[in-house]
Amino acid sequence: MPLTLDKLNSNVVDAKYAVRGALALRAEELRDQLKARPGSLPFDHVINANIGNPQQLDQKPITFYRQVLALLQYPDMLKDTEACSRLFKQDAIERATTLLKEIGSVGAYSHSKGVPYIRQSIAKFIEERDGFSADPEHIYLTTGASNAVTNLLTTLSSSPNAGFLIPIPQYPLYSASLTLCNATAVQYYLDENKEWGTNCKGIDDIVAEAKSENIDLKAIVIINPGNPTGAVLKENDIREIIEMAARDHLVIIADEVYQANVFEGEFKSFKYVLRKMQQENPGKFDHVELASLHSTSKGMIGECGQRGGYMELVGFSDTIQEQIYKLASISLCPVVTGQALMELMVNPPRPGDESYESFTAEYNHIFNTLRSRALKLYNAFQQMEGVTCEKPQGAMYLFPKIKLPQKAVQAAEQQGYEAADAFYCMELLNQTGICVIPGSGFGQEPGTFHFRTTFLAPGDDYGDKILAFHKAFMDKYRD
Amino acid sequence: MPLTLDKLNSNVVDAKYAVRGALALRAEELRDQLKARPGSLPFDHVINANIGNPQQLDQKPITFYRQVLALLQYPDMLKDTEACSRLFKQDAIERATTLLKEIGSVGAYSHSKGVPYIRQSIAKFIEERDGFSADPEHIYLTTGASNAVTNLLTTLSSSPNAGFLIPIPQYPLYSASLTLCNATAVQYYLDENKEWGTNCKGIDDIVAEAKSENIDLKAIVIINPGNPTGAVLKENDIREIIEMAARDHLVIIADEVYQANVFEGEFKSFKYVLRKMQQENPGKFDHVELASLHSTSKGMIGECGQRGGYMELVGFSDTIQEQIYKLASISLCPVVTGQALMELMVNPPRPGDESYESFTAEYNHIFNTLRSRALKLYNAFQQMEGVTCEKPQGAMYLFPKIKLPQKAVQAAEQQGYEAADAFYCMELLNQTGICVIPGSGFGQEPGTFHFRTTFLAPGDDYGDKILAFHKAFMDKYRD
Repeated sequence: MPLTLDKLNSNVVDAKYAVRGALALRAEELRDQLKARPGSLPFDHVINANIGNPQQLDQKPITFYRQVLALLQYPDMLKDTEACSRLFKQDAIERATTLLKEIGSVGAYSHSKGVPYIRQSIAKFIEERDGFSADPEHIYLTTGASNAVTNLLTTLSSSPNAGFLIPIPQYPLYSASLTLCNATAVQYYLDENKEWGTNCKGIDDIVAEAKSENIDLKAIVIINPGNPTGAVLKENDIREIIEMAARDHLVIIADEVYQANVFEGEFKSFKYVLRKMQQENPGKFDHVELASLHSTSKGMIGECGQRGGYMELVGFSDTIQEQIYKLASISLCPVVTGQALMELMVNPPRPGDESYESFTAEYNHIFNTLRSRALKLYNAFQQMEGVTCEKPQGAMYLFPKIKLPQKAVQAAEQQGYEAADAFYCMELLNQTGICVIPGSGFGQEPGTFHFRTTFLAPGDDYGDKILAFHKAFMDKYRD
Repeated sequence: MPLTLDKLNSNVVDAKYAVRGALALRAEELRDQLKARPGSLPFDHVINANIGNPQQLDQKPITFYRQVLALLQYPDMLKDTEACSRLFKQDAIERATTLLKEIGSVGAYSHSKGVPYIRQSIAKFIEERDGFSADPEHIYLTTGASNAVTNLLTTLSSSPNAGFLIPIPQYPLYSASLTLCNATAVQYYLDENKEWGTNCKGIDDIVAEAKSENIDLKAIVIINPGNPTGAVLKENDIREIIEMAARDHLVIIADEVYQANVFEGEFKSFKYVLRKMQQENPGKFDHVELASLHSTSKGMIGECGQRGGYMELVGFSDTIQEQIYKLASISLCPVVTGQALMELMVNPPRPGDESYESFTAEYNHIFNTLRSRALKLYNAFQQMEGVTCEKPQGAMYLFPKIKLPQKAVQAAEQQGYEAADAFYCMELLNQTGICVIPGSGFGQEPGTFHFRTTFLAPGDDYGDKILAFHKAFMDKYRD
């Protein structure tokens, strides 16, 4: 009588997570097949454009970060000053020495909130970014940003009736985590016609409707810059959201992990806009509770596998923070090297430091590469029949809309796909080795189809392949 | 109208986690005070004996592990062969080269189950340990063992009625996680009079009682070697548990993270005993489902902050494993350097490798130090009035029983402590700077008092201080 699905937690069974779902598994199978039988497929390698994982493709880690991390892992190197001076820049040596003094061994558990010195560095970074002070005691290091999301949603999920406003399309971590917490996702649509901006009037209606259904609204999730949309919110959009959250007593969960990935427009943090509104309207917004999330996985750093992250809690009482702290403490502490990497990210080499020039060159090279790949891919989409795409503003993704012919929709149904864009993406993968994720994995307006692709893959190959595939697909299924 | 406790998830509010609770927080305060005002307390440093965190105390990381990890963080070092040969042993260079080929960058997300090559290494380790084969596809790398516990308990918690047999005393991760999962902890007492062994007759009665109360028993948790008890289970105890699990259709969750920390007796894995029983009784135990947990935080490796771990699933169907995989995939992947460290742990230098001798010397030094500190502390407890303690067998802890005088119990009540041992531990901390955890944090037979201390701290100082404190405490409160 082995375990069967009906004996498991139905929230686990019900959770959906497309980023690592059927397409990702198929991509692995194809990769294994190519390894076992080269030449057996119409392509010679699989391109993972399904996940923002820059170092899986050709992005090199930034040298300064890795020099310091190597020294933290094996501090005995510091004793051999000659070998050290050949291998490491002076500022990397100094930074490692400081961090070792503050952290001790990276092999020891740290404080569950993270190493105090690192929290101080993060507070300084936030102050420099926003021009408003930050309290290290309100900063929690996390295992990537996912861990912060889980902690917050778990803490706030008081009943199956607890509602969380999440954007559509959204990063499916949110919907999956809410299913696991047995809470209710209340969807608000981003406006594709307004560069995927937020539509606050629309949200107001949804809030009213949710309240009429006795949903106990807890929080609103905003991803800025957007995933999967790549949109960068304007300050005015942010103001409207804060006003709504203040009025309706919603916690704001601001997923700001792509804050350094901005090509067009300017990133404004929710904390900055909130503090400005508090200055302008004394007393009116003091009760707003905001959690801002950041990560070492994105930006130009792209160190996904190192699992660094933090959240800053703004306006939460000590009583509530104690609960969030307790939850963090049950998993002991975030990986300490990931915490150190966060320190390096928020406190990069400064003018005059030995690494400054090479660091800046590497950083700018990554930034420019990402931008040019984004534009190249965007240009390819412009040439594709029935495809429209917003101009890349930020993050690591494009989310083109594809008008699929009715014949393709029928073929998808006949072959048992949940959605026609899933069929399109599976065909793309099987024929070209390019793995992207269907819009249905993120949510989209009913009747529309999209897919999300990263723009991390080296471009020429990719753009040409997808163009050729799309043409053949349309030729086959055009109504 | 800020958030208040009644608006949160009551499971979070109800969860208790003593390892990082009031005593740990007070220890931090005292440490801060000593830093700000040296000489203001009756001791000059705080000793954290509340948590198995060897590198926070004086345990040095093992060189081979750290050499390889440094090279993985900064592979460019390999290009400078001269500097490399000064700093690193040849086998560390070779291992790093192999791992880099298999992993790619440690800054990329890996497969959510972990890097395939590392899973293969773990499978080989299990085969060598048990003499029975292991399947890399059934091995999941995790963020420490805590993450494996959370995944398994979450997956199995089908309703508030779902019951999990947990030992008393237990590591409070289990009770806290079950509270978070809104499932039911069904306690079984370990037998202090039988060296903290399992009492299977007693468990049978508890199972019968739980069934009569309509508890849907899902799994039994066993911690072997024991935390906090330090007991090493005999093969016969393990057999009885497997028989019971087979009969009552319970998943076995075997927390075996202390398997290398054994001073007396011999560690037998549940997998080994299960496979033997399956050989002896064809068909009879084939349906048993077992999850075995391991970690890089314990053993002689003691790399807690690196957050490495794995679980092996035995006997679970593919359908169930898909759910466990999905849950793992939502948090993307365990930290990749922690995965690499797990590879190094399960595949240490072999005779003939350049690091072999120094590795063995470091390993044995740590083993001998732990054993001698355990015995020294054990001997100190022998001299303390009203204190009895099992001889150390394994793990990193002693769990002495203290007979507290009625006057102390009353004083504790008057001062608002939940339990008299919490009062004893707080007094110990305030007067000596030694931080241990009261037995009430782990569970104990009603009317008995205990505390858990690690035996990681350098011993002389510690033993003398606790002896002097105990004498003074008893003098003050003796009935």
